[in-house]
Amino acid sequence: MDAISVIRTKRDRGELTPDQIDWVIDAYTRGEVAHEQMSSLAMAIFLNGMNRTEIARWTAAMIASGERMDFSSLPRPTADKHSTGGVGDKITLPLAPLVAACGAAVPQLSGRGLGHTGGTLDKLESIPGWRAHLSNAEMLDVLRDVGSVICAAGDGLAPADKKLYALRDVTGTVESIPLIASSIMSKKIAEGTGSLVLDVKVGSGAFMKHLDDARELASTMVELGTDHGVRTVALLTDMATPLGRTAGNALEVRESVEVLAGGGPQDVIDLTLALAREMLDAAGLPDADPAKALADGSAMDHWRRMITAQGGDPDAPLPVAREQHTVTAAGTGTLTTLDAYAVGLAAWRLGAGRARKEDPVQAAAGIELHAKPGDRVTAGQPLLTLHTDTPEKLPYALEALDGGVLIGAPDTTFTAGPVVLERIG
Amino acid sequence: MDAISVIRTKRDRGELTPDQIDWVIDAYTRGEVAHEQMSSLAMAIFLNGMNRTEIARWTAAMIASGERMDFSSLPRPTADKHSTGGVGDKITLPLAPLVAACGAAVPQLSGRGLGHTGGTLDKLESIPGWRAHLSNAEMLDVLRDVGSVICAAGDGLAPADKKLYALRDVTGTVESIPLIASSIMSKKIAEGTGSLVLDVKVGSGAFMKHLDDARELASTMVELGTDHGVRTVALLTDMATPLGRTAGNALEVRESVEVLAGGGPQDVIDLTLALAREMLDAAGLPDADPAKALADGSAMDHWRRMITAQGGDPDAPLPVAREQHTVTAAGTGTLTTLDAYAVGLAAWRLGAGRARKEDPVQAAAGIELHAKPGDRVTAGQPLLTLHTDTPEKLPYALEALDGGVLIGAPDTTFTAGPVVLERIG
Repeated sequence: MDAISVIRTKRDRGELTPDQIDWVIDAYTRGEVAHEQMSSLAMAIFLNGMNRTEIARWTAAMIASGERMDFSSLPRPTADKHSTGGVGDKITLPLAPLVAACGAAVPQLSGRGLGHTGGTLDKLESIPGWRAHLSNAEMLDVLRDVGSVICAAGDGLAPADKKLYALRDVTGTVESIPLIASSIMSKKIAEGTGSLVLDVKVGSGAFMKHLDDARELASTMVELGTDHGVRTVALLTDMATPLGRTAGNALEVRESVEVLAGGGPQDVIDLTLALAREMLDAAGLPDADPAKALADGSAMDHWRRMITAQGGDPDAPLPVAREQHTVTAAGTGTLTTLDAYAVGLAAWRLGAGRARKEDPVQAAAGIELHAKPGDRVTAGQPLLTLHTDTPEKLPYALEALDGGVLIGAPDTTFTAGPVVLERIG
Repeated sequence: MDAISVIRTKRDRGELTPDQIDWVIDAYTRGEVAHEQMSSLAMAIFLNGMNRTEIARWTAAMIASGERMDFSSLPRPTADKHSTGGVGDKITLPLAPLVAACGAAVPQLSGRGLGHTGGTLDKLESIPGWRAHLSNAEMLDVLRDVGSVICAAGDGLAPADKKLYALRDVTGTVESIPLIASSIMSKKIAEGTGSLVLDVKVGSGAFMKHLDDARELASTMVELGTDHGVRTVALLTDMATPLGRTAGNALEVRESVEVLAGGGPQDVIDLTLALAREMLDAAGLPDADPAKALADGSAMDHWRRMITAQGGDPDAPLPVAREQHTVTAAGTGTLTTLDAYAVGLAAWRLGAGRARKEDPVQAAAGIELHAKPGDRVTAGQPLLTLHTDTPEKLPYALEALDGGVLIGAPDTTFTAGPVVLERIG
């Protein structure tokens, strides 16, 4: 077995054999297959695809590259959620404590933002004292005591995926359904959750721009989870426009706390509840009532305990940006477009995201939205506020918004659609 | 400008801009673009192609990555030859001194073998004392004194190609017409020859298995050469069966000397003369008579002077392998197939070639052919003799020959075709 013959098989549109897949993943993890060989193979997979049999084996090989966690000692059923990433997607923050408040255990291993989409860990790190890195034992303790934990995945979990993900990021091989599906599912299956709800984003601010692609990704992942004994369902949700009214780290924490306090934007509430219901169903708790747990303060109580258990102070003031700049409506009419990609890119340029893995993010940078598509706006009214500690970047952020904010004539009838588009599973 | 956007352009079937090409070649040469990024781009080029405009720019950028040699101080016109590589292709050895004997200067920068095809430098190194590495000044001296020189390309010539060639070799991205054409032509144009004849091999033992691909490669290269002011023509030549009656380093030197002495196999003589005539025509010496220079000993005289000028002893005995093993004909009839790839692979396994760039080759290893397609053979007569210093590899060499040697029924009428199939230019 050698790397070149595996690359040639896929390059020439062949099907990789189970042995080829097992070997190449293991050899890459050990460093025997070089980065330049794996990136060549990744591009061949990107362009020539993998069938379901290949994807299943690829996923299994990545799981086998590391340890598997085991939550069977917990007295509660486990449920996890994964989002494919969007702009303003802070749902994990209210969702994890909410589902814990309803009786499930939520072992939420999260990631950092890269490019125009934010990362859950970056958001939570804007809370003074909060720690993303826990040992497996600490993670289990928080999960047992609070019922939910949001932390970074340990190095032992699917190391092949960790290596491949970093490689894909710099070699133009990210947006491939077989590679995305196997990456997400290898981590989630190795993590050992009993059930999993996938939030597959569709639209300009998501990896999947088209509904067909999102459906294929979702059904591939649901099949992978099911095959590995994880009860898995997927919701396809809208990412044409940002979720909620904030994009940025501390700004999104503030909005999440509003939702936990019983307020917050309707789309964030709707999606949080929809995902909570799916998670509780999948965990075998169909009678739980997440709307009640949100209303009666028990979700907020779990949030405060979870943040505290990870070293954070839920009452500490969140950082505020040095500079704020407001964009006003150029005309009067109906806001028809607030493009998720444009807002995500602008927030990234303001400092909310990172260009390279090793870059820091600004906790306070980001964008507040004062109107959402479907709202009536009047010339001169504030539309967005840009927050940044590096005001020299403002012109670039404004350039990113160019063409992303459209106001229709006053008589335009435009209604924003529902946030949940389809359910697969 | 960044590597990922260049990769994405080609991945998504776009045309690379001149600026993208200039930047990526320069940044890769300087180490700013990483190997894993270039290999991902190479696979995207392999699968999605490049058009003539892109190939021309890619070639120009590789030439610009290093120095250009200048032979304008020589009193004779320069002519060079390049073969795309085959089994038993020792033509450079008799050809360079022959063309020099006819009045042109032949600055033949050659390479080493990799995989089943042999390399000119490996062959010549079986001559005791012969040196492949000359400084630019030494090269010019030999060229001025003898008229021909065969040596390794210096590090200053198209360094981008040197780096990319080594990368393609380990990442399954070799057999791509745009990448092969730009690699060959960047070296040849940077070398500074005034005219160039390309020997594009077609058949099982060549990179190009099909005539259509070989035609495309040849016309791409002829166009590139012409655009850069190099008079360029190409011959498409047969590589379904090995050239001559030997494959291996010292074995091929011996056969080349036979040709220079006025003997040798007819196909080697025919191809040597055909290429010599094209080179002399392209160099503006249409009245030269290479057949006469072969017959009257002047080509042999130039050979001896060239070998001596590079430290070699033309009279020294060539190395002989420790073990020889003869394969006999299984039946009586007409030899219809002697597959070039099978023979090349067998010779490689016997030790004539290398698996990795840093491996040594065995000077004496290889295969002698006692019959060629079209010959009548009798059961039990010797067909091939295998030579090796590592007899433990014999079974693997024999396995490579399996199915590659076919004898038709006694009444089969089979005539071998001409070695030159087409001319382009």
